[in-house]
Amino acid sequence: MLDFTPVATTIVDKLAAIVGKENVSTGESELDLHSHDQSFHEPHRAEVIVWANNAQEVADVLKLAHNKHIPVTPWGVGSSLEGNPIPIHGGILLSLRNMNHVIDVHADDFQVTVQPGKPYKDMNKDLSKHGLFFPPDPGANATIGGMLANNAAGIRTVKYGASKDNVLALQVALADGRLIRTGSRSIKQSAGYNLTQVFVGSEGTLGIITEATLKLSPVPEYSSTMIAAFETVEVAIEAVVLIKGSGVDVAALEFLDTPASQTLASRGLDIEPSPTLLMEVHNAHAESQEADVATVREICDELDAASFIAIVDHTQAQAIWHARHQAYETLIRAFPDMKFHVMDVAVPLSKYPEIVAFARQEIANAGTMAFLIGHAGDGNIHVTIPWKDADSLAKVKAMNSAIVHKALALDGTATGEHGVGIGKAPYMPDEHGTGLDVMRQLKNMLDPHGILNPGKIFPAD
Amino acid sequence: MLDFTPVATTIVDKLAAIVGKENVSTGESELDLHSHDQSFHEPHRAEVIVWANNAQEVADVLKLAHNKHIPVTPWGVGSSLEGNPIPIHGGILLSLRNMNHVIDVHADDFQVTVQPGKPYKDMNKDLSKHGLFFPPDPGANATIGGMLANNAAGIRTVKYGASKDNVLALQVALADGRLIRTGSRSIKQSAGYNLTQVFVGSEGTLGIITEATLKLSPVPEYSSTMIAAFETVEVAIEAVVLIKGSGVDVAALEFLDTPASQTLASRGLDIEPSPTLLMEVHNAHAESQEADVATVREICDELDAASFIAIVDHTQAQAIWHARHQAYETLIRAFPDMKFHVMDVAVPLSKYPEIVAFARQEIANAGTMAFLIGHAGDGNIHVTIPWKDADSLAKVKAMNSAIVHKALALDGTATGEHGVGIGKAPYMPDEHGTGLDVMRQLKNMLDPHGILNPGKIFPAD
Repeated sequence: MLDFTPVATTIVDKLAAIVGKENVSTGESELDLHSHDQSFHEPHRAEVIVWANNAQEVADVLKLAHNKHIPVTPWGVGSSLEGNPIPIHGGILLSLRNMNHVIDVHADDFQVTVQPGKPYKDMNKDLSKHGLFFPPDPGANATIGGMLANNAAGIRTVKYGASKDNVLALQVALADGRLIRTGSRSIKQSAGYNLTQVFVGSEGTLGIITEATLKLSPVPEYSSTMIAAFETVEVAIEAVVLIKGSGVDVAALEFLDTPASQTLASRGLDIEPSPTLLMEVHNAHAESQEADVATVREICDELDAASFIAIVDHTQAQAIWHARHQAYETLIRAFPDMKFHVMDVAVPLSKYPEIVAFARQEIANAGTMAFLIGHAGDGNIHVTIPWKDADSLAKVKAMNSAIVHKALALDGTATGEHGVGIGKAPYMPDEHGTGLDVMRQLKNMLDPHGILNPGKIFPAD
Repeated sequence: MLDFTPVATTIVDKLAAIVGKENVSTGESELDLHSHDQSFHEPHRAEVIVWANNAQEVADVLKLAHNKHIPVTPWGVGSSLEGNPIPIHGGILLSLRNMNHVIDVHADDFQVTVQPGKPYKDMNKDLSKHGLFFPPDPGANATIGGMLANNAAGIRTVKYGASKDNVLALQVALADGRLIRTGSRSIKQSAGYNLTQVFVGSEGTLGIITEATLKLSPVPEYSSTMIAAFETVEVAIEAVVLIKGSGVDVAALEFLDTPASQTLASRGLDIEPSPTLLMEVHNAHAESQEADVATVREICDELDAASFIAIVDHTQAQAIWHARHQAYETLIRAFPDMKFHVMDVAVPLSKYPEIVAFARQEIANAGTMAFLIGHAGDGNIHVTIPWKDADSLAKVKAMNSAIVHKALALDGTATGEHGVGIGKAPYMPDEHGTGLDVMRQLKNMLDPHGILNPGKIFPAD
């Protein structure tokens, strides 16, 4: 049972002494702004908002909180989808907003060293003059710290990997106020335990990332976007498996079902309202681009795709991917009186047809509206279901539970990219078995008073 | 200070009760066979050799050893290069040799589930009928368990990653006898702490891997090997940096200095005795293969390479890579009265010219023979120096220390792929700073009696 100390005025004064008076607030509007993320999870206020300016301040705030038994929840921009940064036990909300600088661009090494509060789209804009980019793209303009803490992934993960695959070194502030460095700028590292990966994906429950050195990729010389429409979901999914097996190293392989494509079409995206694949290939040469597009086209033709178009015009392609990235926001705007529950189970690719069929059956049984949007190339599917009251939310939660358990039965995971946060915590015992005990040991080792983002990842006792 | 219990006859009987009498030996020849790896480190005998047959037996042996405070050192085939499996505190040598089965090939998912004692070359032979392979290739026919425990890497890591980048799930026996599973078969995983990466690279000091699910890659449709010879080391290294920056996704980018190429040439490899790059590209289409080779050739031409040849004949290419893989054995045979000290520092690519120049200067200052062989595309260099007596070994160790500290000063690492074992342990405080304290905490958490592969990774107190 967690037992925390309320944030008294004396604590607020101590915090102000660390970060400066202007970087501490107990104002209601600030507390409200930092009480919710993009998910359906119930908002909860912290007791005080603190904006740290550097790694030492983060460490000093943690040391104080550790000694006084006060919760600390780190905050990027609140773009997460599973309640990950909601300060459900109150205490200190530690915003990394002011730590938003690119420290060093190592262009010749395809690396950047950056502070955690930097939004990744802004960083990629800065990096474009070097012809480089950080490839994981969750869609929303998440911060680097948030992306690493949640091991965020996205549309281009199928080629470039998730956040965890694109990080070399970290600086981390521990609960007790120690500042450590993990990893190095060497691509190859076999020097002891992989502490970098202990903190990546730990959702701020083991330490707070205060600096990161990331692997970058060259902006591809050639890029081609493809859209294929199919008669049925089954055939579209068959195409996914064949394209992945063809040896073409697709840079994006996204699936939309008819309701999802319909909604995007109604908002200006020029696609058919049918099961659709959005694809991209990145190439170093025009010849390989043409060969890749030809292979994908051939597979789609053989499966009698209703349509197939390849787009090389950059502006037109960008508009398509912008629309895909905005899919969630588009749904929200299309159904202004509804809230949305987004699942992100992931399974081995060969099981993708089965999880999609299962989700469709659940949706049919429940008689609910639903949108299937998936990073199909990774076996990741977002079952997105609108709800508006306690009854419909209960129904969605039951479907969520059934779909998560099906994914686990298929050797998959409850969460491919959104992290555990609040909503997936109940499934962790089933996903990890006795491995969860080791995770608890790790948590107790690094955060003995349980101050770091309490209430996340582990189910309540 | 470690305090262990000697292995009494009663313990040998208990071990026999777990694994069967025929799987326990205290015979001198077995103790000798398991007393050394491929490195120069001094051999040391265990007190008893145990061959486990399944995960539960591994767990039961650990539980016994944990309760009785007896060291346990896991053993694959002893192909490591840093003393990693030498049982320097005696106790139990736990061989995984009998656990050498492929459990399941998930061909459609490009995955295999395998036992730790399976040698990777044998596994890749089994997988070839599925058109798949496990890409990290350290050269020697290491076991999967050994590769994962040391985070081994090799010639094709520049494209496909190290062992750590090609593993999805593990079963691990913990010191106290618990058996846990980590990860899942989903490519995307954001469900809590990354325990898989806690154990990968931990050199058997945190737990013993009893099963692994690995990512595989399709055997490339097109493959081309290239050999370029240069006038000077500096120009060869310049070519490495340009080729890496060109966007060509090389599958191998290896550097040999003149002494190294000379030795390989004298043993039948048809190359010039000069600074040489051995390269490979893997492609899905003939068109992209041609374009990649053309780009590499152009860079080498612009740098006035003394020669450039591209080889598409599979047998001829295999002979070249076989010779490269055998380089270490070739050196040993070429200098039968010498032993060899192999370094494996790695640095960011932009610092590669600097570390190579530094190593050459050290070699010149010492007036010693030396061979530079490197996974240049990864910034990894093997400085290989023969020695034959205490005096020359002391000289080599001093050079090793200087080169490691230079690599650290260049934001690199003491070890890119051989692991810490015995030889790199003294450098861990300099490489990790206070991060090493967290590694010690992790060690104490999972192995409170310090029985697992004691004397490795951490410098002696």
